Amino acid sequence: MLKLYDNKESRNGYKVLLLLTQLGGPFERVEIDLFKGASRTPEYLAKNPFGKIPALELDDGTVLAESGAILCYLAEGTPYLPDNKVARADVLRWVFFEQNVHEPTIAEARFITRHPEIDPSRMEHILPEKLRRGNVALKLMDDHLARNDFFAAGRYTIADIALYAYTSVADQSGFDLSSYPAVQAWLARVADQPGFIPGTPEG
Amino acid sequence: MLKLYDNKESRNGYKVLLLLTQLGGPFERVEIDLFKGASRTPEYLAKNPFGKIPALELDDGTVLAESGAILCYLAEGTPYLPDNKVARADVLRWVFFEQNVHEPTIAEARFITRHPEIDPSRMEHILPEKLRRGNVALKLMDDHLARNDFFAAGRYTIADIALYAYTSVADQSGFDLSSYPAVQAWLARVADQPGFIPGTPEG
Repeated sequence: MLKLYDNKESRNGYKVLLLLTQLGGPFERVEIDLFKGASRTPEYLAKNPFGKIPALELDDGTVLAESGAILCYLAEGTPYLPDNKVARADVLRWVFFEQNVHEPTIAEARFITRHPEIDPSRMEHILPEKLRRGNVALKLMDDHLARNDFFAAGRYTIADIALYAYTSVADQSGFDLSSYPAVQAWLARVADQPGFIPGTPEG
Repeated sequence: MLKLYDNKESRNGYKVLLLLTQLGGPFERVEIDLFKGASRTPEYLAKNPFGKIPALELDDGTVLAESGAILCYLAEGTPYLPDNKVARADVLRWVFFEQNVHEPTIAEARFITRHPEIDPSRMEHILPEKLRRGNVALKLMDDHLARNDFFAAGRYTIADIALYAYTSVADQSGFDLSSYPAVQAWLARVADQPGFIPGTPEG
């Protein structure tokens, strides 16, 4: 059975949890307590040398890592990732945008806000830049969603799953989503998809 | 003919330029002068609302964006991106790692170092964190390359192209590559691939 290494606070993990749930097949979820070092044990590092979650263990013991790569793997051959080359490139454009622009700003702003104890100076020196660049990303998304119901291929895909994860909790780190009405309407459309789950209470 | 919107200083653009060159088909390269605002004109934003390069225009006028998505599009059906699902996920793991961990630290450290005039305070407040996290990424790569000639699938793929671009110029922003001998040996293996080009003198 597929085994998902996950953490209840991680929205990167939630992306894979959401897709697995919507695909409907059996899987096991294994909680990795990042704050107790569970992702840095020799046993876990042998599975995923990146020392991060999510990771997905296949039946033969192969372990996949990086949320974007796992989403592509699971979505292959399903409506969540189109076969058409151009439509697929359009989906991937947004999945890469999420990992390169959105997650390093919006997710990191949330992490800095939730865990100031790790390095208090980050609140002063790094958070403002994360908020500024995160708002640029949200504006881009809002402009796109003003003209499109979903990010790519004219339907709900892994691009929406990837971007929903941290956008839906962006208000927790000082982003004002009321400035982005098309994003808010899209969040509601995603939450209305068959098999949708909101994630863990801590996530 | 394929049209690549590129900038001579960008190693994100170089990734696509390198793959297009190695694929051997005809394409046109269009220089976009980022420092003169050429990526922010209404005409360019109509092509790529992200206002970034690289972007790839297809014969029918469709424009693809985000280097990782363009690499996947061009490599589909070629040896640079395996068909096998697990091997493909392994390649994508490293392409996503590059965009989520490597590029936001190593490429941004280089940009901050090359263009201090944009915001001098970044040298003090942001560069040290970029260098710290960039070295974590280089150590991960070095450990992996001590046991593997290439990043994934046992051969040269778009994972190597994606990671070569900024690793090969990391010394320009204070990274000491002599600490990473397996990375150095891999850089030489990549530069030895058929059709390799080093990029522009400014890049």
